[in-house]
Amino acid sequence: MIIVLRAGSSDAEVEDVCRRIERMGYRAHTIRGELRTVIGAIGDDRGKDRLKSLESLECVEAVQPILQPFKLASREVRREATVVPVDGVRVGGRAIVVMAGPCSVESRAQVLEVAAKVKAAGASVLRGGAFKPRTSPYSFQGLEEEGLKYLAEAKRETGLPVVTEVMEPEKVELVANYSDILQIGARNIQNFSLLRRVAETRKPVLLKRGMATSIQEWLLSAEYVLSGGNPHVILCERGIRTFETATRNTLDLSAVALAKRSTHLPVVVDPSHAAGRPDLVLPLSLAAAAAGADGLLVEVHARPEEALSDGAQALRPRELRDLMDRLDPVLGAVGRALWRPEGARRAALL
Amino acid sequence: MIIVLRAGSSDAEVEDVCRRIERMGYRAHTIRGELRTVIGAIGDDRGKDRLKSLESLECVEAVQPILQPFKLASREVRREATVVPVDGVRVGGRAIVVMAGPCSVESRAQVLEVAAKVKAAGASVLRGGAFKPRTSPYSFQGLEEEGLKYLAEAKRETGLPVVTEVMEPEKVELVANYSDILQIGARNIQNFSLLRRVAETRKPVLLKRGMATSIQEWLLSAEYVLSGGNPHVILCERGIRTFETATRNTLDLSAVALAKRSTHLPVVVDPSHAAGRPDLVLPLSLAAAAAGADGLLVEVHARPEEALSDGAQALRPRELRDLMDRLDPVLGAVGRALWRPEGARRAALL
Amino acid sequence: MIIVLRAGSSDAEVEDVCRRIERMGYRAHTIRGELRTVIGAIGDDRGKDRLKSLESLECVEAVQPILQPFKLASREVRREATVVPVDGVRVGGRAIVVMAGPCSVESRAQVLEVAAKVKAAGASVLRGGAFKPRTSPYSFQGLEEEGLKYLAEAKRETGLPVVTEVMEPEKVELVANYSDILQIGARNIQNFSLLRRVAETRKPVLLKRGMATSIQEWLLSAEYVLSGGNPHVILCERGIRTFETATRNTLDLSAVALAKRSTHLPVVVDPSHAAGRPDLVLPLSLAAAAAGADGLLVEVHARPEEALSDGAQALRPRELRDLMDRLDPVLGAVGRALWRPEGARRAALL
Amino acid sequence: MIIVLRAGSSDAEVEDVCRRIERMGYRAHTIRGELRTVIGAIGDDRGKDRLKSLESLECVEAVQPILQPFKLASREVRREATVVPVDGVRVGGRAIVVMAGPCSVESRAQVLEVAAKVKAAGASVLRGGAFKPRTSPYSFQGLEEEGLKYLAEAKRETGLPVVTEVMEPEKVELVANYSDILQIGARNIQNFSLLRRVAETRKPVLLKRGMATSIQEWLLSAEYVLSGGNPHVILCERGIRTFETATRNTLDLSAVALAKRSTHLPVVVDPSHAAGRPDLVLPLSLAAAAAGADGLLVEVHARPEEALSDGAQALRPRELRDLMDRLDPVLGAVGRALWRPEGARRAALL
Repeated sequence: MIIVLRAGSSDAEVEDVCRRIERMGYRAHTIRGELRTVIGAIGDDRGKDRLKSLESLECVEAVQPILQPFKLASREVRREATVVPVDGVRVGGRAIVVMAGPCSVESRAQVLEVAAKVKAAGASVLRGGAFKPRTSPYSFQGLEEEGLKYLAEAKRETGLPVVTEVMEPEKVELVANYSDILQIGARNIQNFSLLRRVAETRKPVLLKRGMATSIQEWLLSAEYVLSGGNPHVILCERGIRTFETATRNTLDLSAVALAKRSTHLPVVVDPSHAAGRPDLVLPLSLAAAAAGADGLLVEVHARPEEALSDGAQALRPRELRDLMDRLDPVLGAVGRALWRPEGARRAALL
Repeated sequence: MIIVLRAGSSDAEVEDVCRRIERMGYRAHTIRGELRTVIGAIGDDRGKDRLKSLESLECVEAVQPILQPFKLASREVRREATVVPVDGVRVGGRAIVVMAGPCSVESRAQVLEVAAKVKAAGASVLRGGAFKPRTSPYSFQGLEEEGLKYLAEAKRETGLPVVTEVMEPEKVELVANYSDILQIGARNIQNFSLLRRVAETRKPVLLKRGMATSIQEWLLSAEYVLSGGNPHVILCERGIRTFETATRNTLDLSAVALAKRSTHLPVVVDPSHAAGRPDLVLPLSLAAAAAGADGLLVEVHARPEEALSDGAQALRPRELRDLMDRLDPVLGAVGRALWRPEGARRAALL
Repeated sequence: MIIVLRAGSSDAEVEDVCRRIERMGYRAHTIRGELRTVIGAIGDDRGKDRLKSLESLECVEAVQPILQPFKLASREVRREATVVPVDGVRVGGRAIVVMAGPCSVESRAQVLEVAAKVKAAGASVLRGGAFKPRTSPYSFQGLEEEGLKYLAEAKRETGLPVVTEVMEPEKVELVANYSDILQIGARNIQNFSLLRRVAETRKPVLLKRGMATSIQEWLLSAEYVLSGGNPHVILCERGIRTFETATRNTLDLSAVALAKRSTHLPVVVDPSHAAGRPDLVLPLSLAAAAAGADGLLVEVHARPEEALSDGAQALRPRELRDLMDRLDPVLGAVGRALWRPEGARRAALL
Repeated sequence: MIIVLRAGSSDAEVEDVCRRIERMGYRAHTIRGELRTVIGAIGDDRGKDRLKSLESLECVEAVQPILQPFKLASREVRREATVVPVDGVRVGGRAIVVMAGPCSVESRAQVLEVAAKVKAAGASVLRGGAFKPRTSPYSFQGLEEEGLKYLAEAKRETGLPVVTEVMEPEKVELVANYSDILQIGARNIQNFSLLRRVAETRKPVLLKRGMATSIQEWLLSAEYVLSGGNPHVILCERGIRTFETATRNTLDLSAVALAKRSTHLPVVVDPSHAAGRPDLVLPLSLAAAAAGADGLLVEVHARPEEALSDGAQALRPRELRDLMDRLDPVLGAVGRALWRPEGARRAALL
């Protein structure tokens, strides 16, 4: 941490600040500039918050961090990429994984139909929400455990592992029983009780970045899961909230490229929630792949115009097939490939 | 809802959309403009999401809502202001309520000292966090139940009711046992499981607007509590996240003025988290009062420079006293007053 | 500036960076921390940009500034508040100044009528646009020089000085001939050619903060005018662009309170453009006054529903009168007063 | 436009609004819903602003537009893509164009060296700033006309056409004399006087989206140039300002994909200003190409660590060469190619 003193701070003030820094267990190192004196506090960064409180001294102008506050998620700690195993599918390797399915599980028939269709289109994981975080209490709230059962049945029929959202600590065990990846939604990215609970399961966790979550905060939420003993974290960029209203959110592919540099965790992209409209899902999927994403999370519905939620952004199954066809050469161009069940062994060797 | 069709839609398409609207239980009313045809869907707005899915039809350009989606929170439903009773203190009446105390409960001695001091300064509710939502897993996470006990002891000593944060559904009962107002933090404003659980307690709930929560979404979160059967909701504006980094957040006083118009619920302001620095707390408190806020939530610490969290934004007790002194005439100027224990009866008559 | 090196930088790299810093005319001061080495570059901050380029060295992680980059605008350079004289009215003293009038000058009759009415309501400066920056080329673009003449005539009739916008360097002289304050609109806050030109006139300049302009950038734009030799700068906060769409912009009163601390320049507030709706203008005006604003810029139209631009946010003259009546006691409560022609002498003594 | 009336509006009020709509030259069409009455105003959308002023009537809740306000820029008006001819290079066709060079022209030697190197790396247009919009008046402001001459000399030596920024109307003719594309910077996207002046030149214009400019506003700025008689408009996405500070701006590739759908104009991407750091330029360039961009604007400096401005984000020439090599297969994968002088004829045939 760097402590910047106000112009005209006296020697006594500088000494007082140094003494306080040392009392907190850091070494203090003073630099006198032409207009300002700054003091470096040297030592373990974990006490950062306490140093920050020095800002309330009259003579301190600002306390600035120097280090990134995350550790286990950092590339500096672990150079090689983490690959998360999901019941035979591997997320984070050379092959990128397409997870597809409806926003909500609406009925047994609906989910079985769409599961078969996304499998036929080439997806390797089935997505679908049984517990739904809805902005309004009057919206469809999901089929809950019944929905989980339909997802499990769809898995038995298609062989596709399932990713589904869990919204509260008490339901973690239940959702873990029926699914392969526990999704933490954008609204729960800083629900720390939930993060601690999913850490305990040791199951793969897909962490959606929140609408106003900085990249650093997103990685700190990953750090909650990692430091809780669960190394199987998949990050998911799904658009942030900005002033632009022509799209539902603003997809931040710089965050994907940056996260791939600063962390060893796999990063997937949800172009459906980012765009909020189906015609942008294809170009954004190709762009995500080119930017280095390790997977895609795509909403697909057999009849979007009849969906109980978010139909306005879902692809039809044939549009997903088209997307896969178009994705293939782009992945080849950046030295990657689509995950395919039959290709599993080959990709794993790379 | 208004359904806007694309330029050049055929009569058959218009009819198809009308038929779908009617099948969902609405009446369809077509207007043919010079360039566009629009269809009004008339009926109960609760099926809004399903109508929105019509956007995935080729011929539909956009589906626009006409009505606000919240009902119980709306001034249209209830004209008179809601007053929330908090163990003798009334939030939402003519008198405005100052809630003050430390960010975190750090020790028994700390909370008893600061409680006595904020009472002496004129605050009428004690704030303090026992469960702390911390961005980093390595930061101080709060004293938990032990902290709740210290808060309850501080209440016994000072008579001040207590507001404290609850972070997960399973802890609602525990926190409710020790406190008078259940605070939902900014990070949990769309933690719908938690909202449903605090609704069940019938205790006063203080709902902090999230960093990227629109006013409409904030009121829909209130709607979760209200529709769950708990009418005692206090809204709290605490700054939103914008591009500006000179302040921790951007305090949105337009949201306060607007919420006071569109809802009957009391609205309080947290200038400490908004500003992130103590020197702005006074002017923002005065501004909040002038804009129509029903209360303030102010961080106070006996020795901010030693605080375990957020010391950089806390006032010292004498600064709180100064704030109260400066607030008094501003409140008088807008026809309001500070809540004072001895003034309770008088204010209640107004 | 603080140069942060990457973990594991070699001694040779540290020395290379120090040599480069010294070649640019700074002294280099190295601190070796547990994980990182940082180097302070000591000397005049004006070469900041060049130091920033060191980030492109492999071994440099970040280059962080320590000092605020503005000088002439800073309270550190000039402690006492600047008072800007505007043809008899003084902006920045104890008395706060209300500038009112229509968004656009639409006709001679319209501007003469509204000028008389805002004067009767107690405003002390007339606002009105003759050159209009309109988002669409198909919108009404203003009466240009003809509009300036009507404003000048309205000044002759009422005695109210005039503030009006200038949009391009070539028109500065023309607009200066007809007006008392040159307004730089939000869209031109970083039109540096225009800033340099208005600096040359030595006329009062009202600088509207841009929709995405940080407080620091706003003050740097003021610095362009000040360093160009014109000390008569009035800052104007008018709302920033955020994700919230319920209001036209988000009024940032923290920026007002902060600017009053970090600069000696007067700061006024435009609640009309911030809110975009008339019912919020009153509470936001009171809040601005309580937060320490030195003036208000309020849109007023005799018949808003017929306005050629921005009618949806204009007050009617009687609403302005009501606003002035409500403002008076709030100003008294914060030790200030409304500027009134007859009170000029008294206020000037304070 | 759709005019939404408040709940409980009387028949007389509905009639009054209809009469006003008709007086403005529109037909009024009333729909009575269960809770609200809405009125459609049918007719030419150009009077939109006047209709918007109806919001100031007591009984009107909101006035909502139905149509996009831009016309000449719209795909509805012109289906086929516009190709902008730039002295032999064609922007907007199948081949994508890389424009590269330094942020600022710093000296004759610097620009000649870098021009030769970017040409060798495969760029087809030279970029470089002679007039520089700098946030601080104390930063290097550019070599102005001298810089333009060096650019022209670099063009004579390399054959590369030149794109350079023009900042004020009075300089348009001067800059047009020395360059092939007139760049309007992000800070001037709503400098309407400047837009009108560059329209008169009939020269290609590159319009950088502003930091807080919505897609719709960006296209309306293009509409100023198009309606001024200049069809040669190139749009440029360069990142918007959001809460995220890990990157300089947030590159909005959804805007690129969306603009390609809603307008016929070519869209290029500036990954350098978006990212503000060189290591993200490659992945963002590939992503932009995959999303459908028609070109790239990349900052390149022979020795970034010595640059007078923005060195921290510039590529070195060998990094540009690497970028071109990596771009090639991605373009092939999406059915496009790099513009190459020798390939000009072939690409033009497509």
